[in-house]
Amino acid sequence: MKISVLISPLNADELFFTGKTTVVIDVLRATTTISTALQNGAKEVIPVNTVEFAMKVSGNAFGGQTILGGERNTKKVEGFTLGNSPLEYTQENVFGKSIILFTTNGSKAIVRAKFSENLITCSFNNLGSVANHLLDLNKDFIILCAGANGMFSLEDTICAGKLITELTKLKEEIILTDSARASVSLSKSFGKNISKMIAETEHGRTLIENGYSDDINYCAKLNSIDNVPVFSSGVIKNYEPKVEQSAN
Amino acid sequence: MKISVLISPLNADELFFTGKTTVVIDVLRATTTISTALQNGAKEVIPVNTVEFAMKVSGNAFGGQTILGGERNTKKVEGFTLGNSPLEYTQENVFGKSIILFTTNGSKAIVRAKFSENLITCSFNNLGSVANHLLDLNKDFIILCAGANGMFSLEDTICAGKLITELTKLKEEIILTDSARASVSLSKSFGKNISKMIAETEHGRTLIENGYSDDINYCAKLNSIDNVPVFSSGVIKNYEPKVEQSAN
Repeated sequence: MKISVLISPLNADELFFTGKTTVVIDVLRATTTISTALQNGAKEVIPVNTVEFAMKVSGNAFGGQTILGGERNTKKVEGFTLGNSPLEYTQENVFGKSIILFTTNGSKAIVRAKFSENLITCSFNNLGSVANHLLDLNKDFIILCAGANGMFSLEDTICAGKLITELTKLKEEIILTDSARASVSLSKSFGKNISKMIAETEHGRTLIENGYSDDINYCAKLNSIDNVPVFSSGVIKNYEPKVEQSAN
Repeated sequence: MKISVLISPLNADELFFTGKTTVVIDVLRATTTISTALQNGAKEVIPVNTVEFAMKVSGNAFGGQTILGGERNTKKVEGFTLGNSPLEYTQENVFGKSIILFTTNGSKAIVRAKFSENLITCSFNNLGSVANHLLDLNKDFIILCAGANGMFSLEDTICAGKLITELTKLKEEIILTDSARASVSLSKSFGKNISKMIAETEHGRTLIENGYSDDINYCAKLNSIDNVPVFSSGVIKNYEPKVEQSAN
């Protein structure tokens, strides 16, 4: 099993992902929010890469079961029902709903990787479940850090490093690219106190300044959720193992 | 003084660099080669981002004072006089010459950053001189890692981390972005034995497989050259302090 890490979605074009297994990480906050929404009973999350497309998809939906969620520059997009704080994605707000999600980095990263054969989202919250799922898949995979406006994101890279570390505990014969080795090293150097680490990052400080301190603590919780969000045919749902049909 | 690190040229467009101070690093091997060529008396190095443009610039030059240098996939480009091994850029080969340089990552990164107000190239070889020059400039700056085909390069990031570490020894009140903090951390984790570190990277292993082991040892030498290559108006020359004119 070979593991590599992409520091930013800009480092590869859409076709790069064709046929690959990809894990998208956007700790602050898209992939944390996706995991939370699905945990709280959302039917599905539909990631989009422009606000205009969010509006268009929303216009095609009906029956009051579709809500718009997301942010621009950490704040809720005007006209959207929810922002990008995972704490908003409660059972009361999302149960049974389709959520169209637009965010500055995370939803775009997922759309960028849409041609992947397997496309999974990961955060600190569901890192353990994702590690076990990747172990079952037993394929080479790429971790795509959503980054920050095309640039490096410390919290995403450290989450990538922790995911890799978890897998190397569970499985032998794992080959790491240079980017994967660097992520593991950074997770060792910075990842002991996740909440403190996040609070000290550029993005963490911006969130705190905008009144989202509770989000930091929530996004830092390791293995608090046990789902595996999987993207397929344009929507993200909880992974459910296929039930083998009886031969009778 | 604020220092940030760009992991790859793809993380920012050309206009991002307008008015900025930028240090380009491509340890294997473009910025090592540039520093070596200038040390050995090359008149200038002209970085280009396509082979076609190299041929065109070369066609405009005359008098036998212009040579083509560079590589594609570590090997010398067909029809070029020199490859990208710094060991080829001897006094005998380059003294007094203009060198048109095309490489897979390094020369492209320099051209990408061409709108910078100050554009400097750095390698392990001339890291100390560059640190002192940046100290004199006393401006915020960006380190642009040439990377590997748009992706992360461990040796470039570690060289960036060492350059930052050198500066933090010389100056107080340095602000590091997350990418700069990560580079410093990686240089501490991997940078104790530079030659061994480079030999273990993906790019280092490819060079060794292609018979360039001596290049690794050469590129790993810390502070073996004391020049500061500066890009201005399309060409790279050694930095020379302006001589203040007498008032008389």
